[in-house]
Amino acid sequence: MARVSQEHLDARRRQILDGAALCFARNGFHATSMQDVLKEVDLSAGAVYRYFSGKEELIGAIVAEVLGSVREAFEEAVRQSPPPPPDELVASVLGRTLAARESLVVDGRPAFPRLVVQVWTETLRNDELALILREGYGSVRAAWGRIVEGYQQAGMMRADVTPDHVARTMIACVLGFIAQQSLFGPAPVEVLRDGLRALTSMRDVDTAAGGSQLG
Amino acid sequence: MARVSQEHLDARRRQILDGAALCFARNGFHATSMQDVLKEVDLSAGAVYRYFSGKEELIGAIVAEVLGSVREAFEEAVRQSPPPPPDELVASVLGRTLAARESLVVDGRPAFPRLVVQVWTETLRNDELALILREGYGSVRAAWGRIVEGYQQAGMMRADVTPDHVARTMIACVLGFIAQQSLFGPAPVEVLRDGLRALTSMRDVDTAAGGSQLG
Repeated sequence: MARVSQEHLDARRRQILDGAALCFARNGFHATSMQDVLKEVDLSAGAVYRYFSGKEELIGAIVAEVLGSVREAFEEAVRQSPPPPPDELVASVLGRTLAARESLVVDGRPAFPRLVVQVWTETLRNDELALILREGYGSVRAAWGRIVEGYQQAGMMRADVTPDHVARTMIACVLGFIAQQSLFGPAPVEVLRDGLRALTSMRDVDTAAGGSQLG
Repeated sequence: MARVSQEHLDARRRQILDGAALCFARNGFHATSMQDVLKEVDLSAGAVYRYFSGKEELIGAIVAEVLGSVREAFEEAVRQSPPPPPDELVASVLGRTLAARESLVVDGRPAFPRLVVQVWTETLRNDELALILREGYGSVRAAWGRIVEGYQQAGMMRADVTPDHVARTMIACVLGFIAQQSLFGPAPVEVLRDGLRALTSMRDVDTAAGGSQLG
């Protein structure tokens, strides 16, 4: 038998993961069969099963890959001092995450946000997937907690709030922005960046210079 | 036939909606049959079908009710000048929304966040539900946009950011916080309140008084 290069193996694996992601985004995990995936990627069962044992392993690999790249991006931000402000950090990580998957299209729209919401629902009944998601979420949340500590130590943020609460809030913004895209169509990450920028520059009305009260 | 009081009709309707919400949260919309709903509410088919024609109408009514009460709460906030700050406003509306549904419990945990995520997935394949959600989202987003204008006019927020972008960001926080609860278990709304409080009090590191840089 001919030797197969690592690049070829990697490209094949990529092709299968992308095809499966497209199927799951389109019809949900439950309504997708391995036959659908084989048809989508145009490979034989033998070729696909060499890489993945079935649907469970495919969805697990897709989720682990996304969470891994997000975690890496935030761990990189932790190493900066002070860390980039929330609006820039979120826009850059989310922008890259969406861009890396922009070739996934269903009905002429980016499929990634749809896939994310399908995964959430599947997580409610799939303990193995729940574990992968919980671990990935845990490490992103821990990284965000350290970024928040960086803000506090640099005097950018009040220090009397538990860093983990800010971490959860930041992750909530991103998850909710993805949910909105899934439900109501694509929106540029600049929307979220602008929104966070406005929020992080708020002032108490008492101390607002030059502000005029309504009414 | 005996006359039936309006209170009785309302209570019966409430009972059916709550039972259906519980079924949908537990097993998802697809895997729930009208038989499951009848069993859950312990009523005859005739009694239930007098109020709702089927699953579609039930899920539509549940979603419309939640969105209606959220919209009302934000429209009330619009009338205040200046509007309550984001952390307080979100904590109060989300707190009330969760509290009103705290009797819905699945596997010993609040069922409402689960229900929300199930509805999102169902929305991807149900055009009628998508329309209800889109309309409700549109009016909440419009109300939030006016609240943001209120912040800007009171000098509490920089005025060079499109109010709608801040509106989308605020809604994202709440949707994402609900998604987190669904995936990783309940968390008090104070987590989100604290996180928003810390974000809205951030300062640029250049202008931070008394801040010390790391490293």
